[in-house]
Amino acid sequence: MFERNLTLLTDLYELTMMQGYFKEQDHDKVVVFDVFYRSNPCNNGYSIAAGLEQVIDYIKGLHFSYEAVDYLRGLHIFDEDFLHYLSGYHFSGDIYAIPEGSVIFPREPLIKVIAPIMEAQLIETALLNIINHQSLIATKTARVVYAASGGGIMEFGLRRAQGPDAGLYGARAAMIGGCVGTSNVLAGQLFDVPVMGTHAHSWIMSFPDEYHAFKAYANLYPDACTLLVDTYDTLKSGVPNAIRVFREMKESGIPLKNYGIRLDSGDLAYLSKKARKMLDEAGFPDAKIAASNDLDEYLIHDLKQQGAAIDVWGVGTHLITSKDCPSFGGVYKLAAMQDETGTFIPKIKLSENTEKITNPGNKTIFRIYDKESGKIRADLICFADEKFDESKDLLIFDPIETWKKTKLKGGTYTMREMLVPVFIRGECVYQSPTVMEIAEYCKKEKETLWDETKRLFYPHKVYVDLSDKLYAVKKQLLDKMSVNEE
Amino acid sequence: MFERNLTLLTDLYELTMMQGYFKEQDHDKVVVFDVFYRSNPCNNGYSIAAGLEQVIDYIKGLHFSYEAVDYLRGLHIFDEDFLHYLSGYHFSGDIYAIPEGSVIFPREPLIKVIAPIMEAQLIETALLNIINHQSLIATKTARVVYAASGGGIMEFGLRRAQGPDAGLYGARAAMIGGCVGTSNVLAGQLFDVPVMGTHAHSWIMSFPDEYHAFKAYANLYPDACTLLVDTYDTLKSGVPNAIRVFREMKESGIPLKNYGIRLDSGDLAYLSKKARKMLDEAGFPDAKIAASNDLDEYLIHDLKQQGAAIDVWGVGTHLITSKDCPSFGGVYKLAAMQDETGTFIPKIKLSENTEKITNPGNKTIFRIYDKESGKIRADLICFADEKFDESKDLLIFDPIETWKKTKLKGGTYTMREMLVPVFIRGECVYQSPTVMEIAEYCKKEKETLWDETKRLFYPHKVYVDLSDKLYAVKKQLLDKMSVNEE
Repeated sequence: MFERNLTLLTDLYELTMMQGYFKEQDHDKVVVFDVFYRSNPCNNGYSIAAGLEQVIDYIKGLHFSYEAVDYLRGLHIFDEDFLHYLSGYHFSGDIYAIPEGSVIFPREPLIKVIAPIMEAQLIETALLNIINHQSLIATKTARVVYAASGGGIMEFGLRRAQGPDAGLYGARAAMIGGCVGTSNVLAGQLFDVPVMGTHAHSWIMSFPDEYHAFKAYANLYPDACTLLVDTYDTLKSGVPNAIRVFREMKESGIPLKNYGIRLDSGDLAYLSKKARKMLDEAGFPDAKIAASNDLDEYLIHDLKQQGAAIDVWGVGTHLITSKDCPSFGGVYKLAAMQDETGTFIPKIKLSENTEKITNPGNKTIFRIYDKESGKIRADLICFADEKFDESKDLLIFDPIETWKKTKLKGGTYTMREMLVPVFIRGECVYQSPTVMEIAEYCKKEKETLWDETKRLFYPHKVYVDLSDKLYAVKKQLLDKMSVNEE
Repeated sequence: MFERNLTLLTDLYELTMMQGYFKEQDHDKVVVFDVFYRSNPCNNGYSIAAGLEQVIDYIKGLHFSYEAVDYLRGLHIFDEDFLHYLSGYHFSGDIYAIPEGSVIFPREPLIKVIAPIMEAQLIETALLNIINHQSLIATKTARVVYAASGGGIMEFGLRRAQGPDAGLYGARAAMIGGCVGTSNVLAGQLFDVPVMGTHAHSWIMSFPDEYHAFKAYANLYPDACTLLVDTYDTLKSGVPNAIRVFREMKESGIPLKNYGIRLDSGDLAYLSKKARKMLDEAGFPDAKIAASNDLDEYLIHDLKQQGAAIDVWGVGTHLITSKDCPSFGGVYKLAAMQDETGTFIPKIKLSENTEKITNPGNKTIFRIYDKESGKIRADLICFADEKFDESKDLLIFDPIETWKKTKLKGGTYTMREMLVPVFIRGECVYQSPTVMEIAEYCKKEKETLWDETKRLFYPHKVYVDLSDKLYAVKKQLLDKMSVNEE
């Protein structure tokens, strides 16, 4: 019902390069591309991987329709033999990925594509688009959820999202990151997640007065009755009218469930404390106070510190756009190419900026946990065929500041390979969990972080190290390249 | 081919309110809702309206499928009579809008919906989602285009856009705002706009060396050959290899057209000046220099000031996400309700923040141009049935600082009604121009702005005034409300 052919959702240069490979190189030459990112958004201590299910749908749906080929023909830059190849294109490679909801760190391959060069090149743009977007929103959500320290976060951002998909898949990512529900009905339907909402100012304004608007709403929705109290005057009109309706409902024998008020303007600390007092004194200590109005993790953090009596938070614009950092810098870099013998030859991209130098080779990642606490000690990037023995000591070191070393004593740590097979020889071998299952897994993933890594400001960095073997190859390539250059 | 049913792309509260109206109010009661915004993104002096064509598609496609009704039934908050109404829902109202590509200003109704209350309520969220997104990107683009002062801007942001739609419709909006092309192939196909691109680092890395990669590319694409020169070392390797290839192509008798280099890292001012000199000295003064790498209007403005020799700019993340201001604050507010006699009764929403008080009534906007220069003197919001005579003097005044008055002498100004009919009684009466036609119109629209309004920093504000009649009604409502409150 919601499928679209996204095959042309790619940068033109992917196609011009593909034609170049088609004409100049061995079509079947297999390469390795890594998706990774260089820094966590919002200066967070970690990120949350999200979007894999949509990547899978995209890969499965890849095919150039007759119309697509015809459009490309009309650009007058592609030859018939290449267009013919495109009309038979399908993805025949392998894809490995870190499961959605996992906590992730900079420089790790989140997705690894092993495929003939033309097939691998095409999918760069869409992969990055999908993963960058959802990982961004899941990560931002994790920050907002952390700030609310137990208070539920409702995703309310659809109207400010950057287009329908940003609202829809943003809501999906927000649920993965820890929201308790979304206002987005389509997201509710497609992803089977809780939908939530109250009413708008227009509801109040369409009635002769606020009291009648509240009363009508309470009669209609006694099981989920949150009244918006700021249309006219929050403390003088809204809260007293809400209390009057709560009381009348109670007296009439229709007890309200999941009821309360929503504040949407003014000083939320002051108003929530005043409103809490009024509700308590009127005998409604179980009435919940929801708040909305340009909230983000910083404001929620401050409001909590000031003792705001807010139980539930509706977060819109700031969450759905990740307003202070609206992009996730995932990139897609060539890491290796098979030679004639089938051996992967590591490839590296230089840069004057050391952080931008890529990690070469066909790699994987192991997460190293402290055996006792279950918390993450470090991540280790290594070649895909390296083996480790948890009973032995493991020396790990920072790939840039190589003098920073740690020796992990054998028996005190456990290792888990993070990349799992998703496509093998073009066949999908992975079944995505439901969004609520991913959300549950994500919650557990966050528990593997030390508190120091979770805090909003200046979090402690988790080490992502290279194996000895990988570091040696990288250094060798760097040395060789610098000689070659002049 | 690219149609989706977006009927459920709405906030849950629109549906719970609809059921409320269905049960509590006259179904056919007609209301007026306005879409407007309160401030220009990025502190710009104006915004660009965009997204109307997608709003039209959305309205035309509105219907609750069997699956949608079934999903809503499963939420256990909607009654069968209301679900039955939904299954027959279609939009039967009127919609007026400012055409896409128009320059717009805060507080003006960009879209006006006149429809039975239930129909008007449902469409709030999707309308805002679409208009907010595209108007944001069109406006951001106008800023970037202004900064480049004649140099072409290529939209390169797909991989960092917030999901597929953000890339696709963001590219559309970027073309409206003034880009010369986009890398997004799907946008090229769907909107018939120019697609552009070069090649990536992976192209270079897949060849034994940079020279052979360049040579292969030039042979393939002699008519559009921009070589990326920063894979290894821009000035020592990239530019010399590019010059070698340009020279060989020239000597071989295949002259390159639209050729040049692209810089993607390092100091773009320094490198572009050095590269320009090298290209000129080698006899390639017509080789163009393109630049990319985290560009925005501020950096482009600075690079231009420093004499960077850059002809074309590839702008990605900052444009496609409007990074420093990733949301456009369009809102949807009830402005009037018909009474039993069919008369529109103006409605107002109060707020402690004067800027947030709405303008009541069924309104329209007139743009007032200086007759001689064709530049905008002011915009005037008035009731839809007000008439003006351009030959007579017109006194306009600021709706908040009412002591700020200007008298426009009769005969020195012309007036143009900005809202045009798009749907009348549910029928679409508007034919969207093509995206390139809208872009052309937008260019002319920008010429109606004074230079002072177009500058990037602290632009001059364009006055948006209320008519005498509208101001009088607003004041009367405000006075009445404040008395009513206690």
